[in-house]
Amino acid sequence: MSKDFATREENYSKWYNDIVTKADLAENSAVRGCMVIKPYGYSIWEKMQATLDKMFKDTGHENAYFPLFIPKSFFSKEASHVEGFAKECAVVTHYRLKNSPDGKGIIVDEDAKLEEELIVRPTSETIIWDTYRNWIQSYRDLPLLINQWANVVRWEMRTRLFLRTAEFLWQEGHTAHATQQEAIEEAEKMLNVYADFAENFLAIPVLKGVKSENERFAGAVETYCIEALMQDGKALQAGTSHFLGQNFAKAFDVKFTGKDGKQEYVWATSWGVSTRLMGALIMAHSDDNGLVLPPKLAPHQVVIVPIYKTDEEFARLNEKAAEIKKSLEALNIRVKYDNRDTHKPGWKFAEYEFKGVPVRIAIGPRDLENGTVEVARRDTKEKASYQQIDLAHKIEHLLGQIQSNLYQKALSFREQNTTNVDTWDEFVNQIEGKGGFVYAHWDGTKETEEKIKELTKATIRCIPLNNKKEEGKCVLTGKPSTQRVVFARAY
Amino acid sequence: MSKDFATREENYSKWYNDIVTKADLAENSAVRGCMVIKPYGYSIWEKMQATLDKMFKDTGHENAYFPLFIPKSFFSKEASHVEGFAKECAVVTHYRLKNSPDGKGIIVDEDAKLEEELIVRPTSETIIWDTYRNWIQSYRDLPLLINQWANVVRWEMRTRLFLRTAEFLWQEGHTAHATQQEAIEEAEKMLNVYADFAENFLAIPVLKGVKSENERFAGAVETYCIEALMQDGKALQAGTSHFLGQNFAKAFDVKFTGKDGKQEYVWATSWGVSTRLMGALIMAHSDDNGLVLPPKLAPHQVVIVPIYKTDEEFARLNEKAAEIKKSLEALNIRVKYDNRDTHKPGWKFAEYEFKGVPVRIAIGPRDLENGTVEVARRDTKEKASYQQIDLAHKIEHLLGQIQSNLYQKALSFREQNTTNVDTWDEFVNQIEGKGGFVYAHWDGTKETEEKIKELTKATIRCIPLNNKKEEGKCVLTGKPSTQRVVFARAY
Repeated sequence: MSKDFATREENYSKWYNDIVTKADLAENSAVRGCMVIKPYGYSIWEKMQATLDKMFKDTGHENAYFPLFIPKSFFSKEASHVEGFAKECAVVTHYRLKNSPDGKGIIVDEDAKLEEELIVRPTSETIIWDTYRNWIQSYRDLPLLINQWANVVRWEMRTRLFLRTAEFLWQEGHTAHATQQEAIEEAEKMLNVYADFAENFLAIPVLKGVKSENERFAGAVETYCIEALMQDGKALQAGTSHFLGQNFAKAFDVKFTGKDGKQEYVWATSWGVSTRLMGALIMAHSDDNGLVLPPKLAPHQVVIVPIYKTDEEFARLNEKAAEIKKSLEALNIRVKYDNRDTHKPGWKFAEYEFKGVPVRIAIGPRDLENGTVEVARRDTKEKASYQQIDLAHKIEHLLGQIQSNLYQKALSFREQNTTNVDTWDEFVNQIEGKGGFVYAHWDGTKETEEKIKELTKATIRCIPLNNKKEEGKCVLTGKPSTQRVVFARAY
Repeated sequence: MSKDFATREENYSKWYNDIVTKADLAENSAVRGCMVIKPYGYSIWEKMQATLDKMFKDTGHENAYFPLFIPKSFFSKEASHVEGFAKECAVVTHYRLKNSPDGKGIIVDEDAKLEEELIVRPTSETIIWDTYRNWIQSYRDLPLLINQWANVVRWEMRTRLFLRTAEFLWQEGHTAHATQQEAIEEAEKMLNVYADFAENFLAIPVLKGVKSENERFAGAVETYCIEALMQDGKALQAGTSHFLGQNFAKAFDVKFTGKDGKQEYVWATSWGVSTRLMGALIMAHSDDNGLVLPPKLAPHQVVIVPIYKTDEEFARLNEKAAEIKKSLEALNIRVKYDNRDTHKPGWKFAEYEFKGVPVRIAIGPRDLENGTVEVARRDTKEKASYQQIDLAHKIEHLLGQIQSNLYQKALSFREQNTTNVDTWDEFVNQIEGKGGFVYAHWDGTKETEEKIKELTKATIRCIPLNNKKEEGKCVLTGKPSTQRVVFARAY
């Protein structure tokens, strides 16, 4: 692992990119804005997927799969949705290529033009609600609790690996309900699932709240979100859950007959998280020595590195390491034993440090004599000598400690970077200085929100759930306000 | 479940479609050729995915993710690949829509035309080998053993649910090796993984072989395949594994420095199976009463249905069923207890029969008195009274029996529908009559193969691995031949 990477201080943006590319998480592809997720990065995503998938199933959801393409006309059916989504997108216009008459390569066959263009899905509400029309007749067909794991495409002009890419991977839940109340409860339940996942797996504390009208999902009545704070003081929206009212049911004519025999439009939610979570994970915990991974999502939780001079020592270490590995695996700990003779221990130490492996165990001939190993934790960089006796349980405990330490550290950071401000000067100073979450009074209007964004690039990240009511004056206009909302610059 | 579905005898094609749609596996979507995979169907696919994914990882492969889009020019780089794949495909030409000047909906924004068109991947060799160029420098970087789970699109004119759809889900393995020998071994290893999966999970016996030149993957040096026989006597290619030689390495300039310091092009394989396996699974085992699922892939392996008249009986049955369910789940058996009071037992029996649940347990008040349950198996439709004592182990054993019975039944069917023929008349009679696998001599030429296809619609399914050498005369031309090859009409 070369030392040729930036620190946060020097260049935060380059630091992030260096970690993503040099820790083998992802890289840009030959296709503008589309990334390649490399095996190490993908294995972290797989762990996120498996965890979330179980949480979705435990809350009664089933997976299904809907088409990649959406007929153009579908987007026009929900008025605000089309404004939000149908504009910057990949448009399929033809279904055939042919050999170029000049013999140089292939060209689009103009005889194979689609009657109606197809849009590569930026999100699937329209095609799914078009399908639900045939699936829902009576209250007995409700609730319908469906999730899809899929790729989606939004033609972003400025892209950044994981954080904003033209194609990304995500899950999108789409549920249908007989009552407004039940749909709202579903949207809130899934927000809580996301918050649980963020805090207990990603080890990232999140604010739960609702979006202002400006920031709402195109087509939603209410957008719930979880907001995380990154180390540069910028916020990152880590997941959203939308109460869609009857908007899509009306646009696609999805009605059900209630117990009382009356027909009513169906109530809807949708909710999603994406490979953007990889960006959040990287930025929340990593340091100037590279990636730091919470143990619950680390592909390798422990790496064992042997240190030896002679073949005889190597043979004995292999034996001992195999024994340790087995004892760790018996506790479902994911262990890698790296006994490649093509790389020196120092190189391996740097490599696994940069890749964020939570615990490193080094073992050498003297350890064999003493019945010890050297244990280094990635988060604090502390090293200690451990007795081999009952090592597996001690490591298991240590992994738990690392997981909670990362959360605590991120929480402290957020606490230290959360400020109440009451004047416009304070507001500007805070946003343009340290950043962080800024709680300020706002007069509740779109115009003020937009003006603040224009002046400072700060947006309302959310209005926290169960927000404290408090009389105050809008930080920009001085008009009366009943609560503080959370501002920040954001990814 | 209505009785309104076709039998195999009446209309095999309608029978298949009825099972797919009425057992809630999949349906056509609003987008031509694209299907919606419904939750019940998707849960079977998830089990296939999980099983295969484990098999891939156990053989040293890692997952990654490559872009959905491929620049048009990439396809022209491998001469035979472009002929096979780049023609019927979805072409993205624009990246923006705008409001129509007439105010009616949205139209393509001609100002947002891509400089180079993007193809929605029909398979990913080109984009992956373009990426591998940067990943491979030295023999130390090899082998590279990567798999991707993804959606792909091929613009098929005639589509059938699962068997042939414009968009389908699949996995594609793409490996890179330092030697020809190692790449060939990899291609053969993955063929064996597929055969193992087909026989031990899908319960479908398969022939392993290689394709004739005509039927080879576009860009491959050798295509290995597994071929299964369906109940209508037609063959279905269930998986392919390709030895690609150095074709893609040359097309994308991927070289490595060997131990000897010399540069050489990298050797490649690719291999894939898709949601087409769902079609194979359905057609191999199902009967005129609906879907039949092998227990290893059934979402519910056992369904328990209570039969009662009074609330008091219902309460006692609920208690007993919960106990049985718990004991089955302790053995990792997937159980559904259906105590909905909105449907009668007879309706439920028909429903689960049609959906292929391997074992049904019915329990009524008399069973409670006698300490029994009624057990019905889906495959043979036999019913028997079982003592409740040690029921879970008996059911576990029964599930194993059903799994192997389905395989044996499919194997017997294949044996009965495999014929050696020596004359053209016999050949035509067999192909146009019962069908099945027809072993016949062939003179080894493309022309003869094509002529046979033209005359009978039969194709060479494969040249079996370790095929018996045997002198004979080509069934069409009478020219000398050294071995029989396997002909059939195919899906």
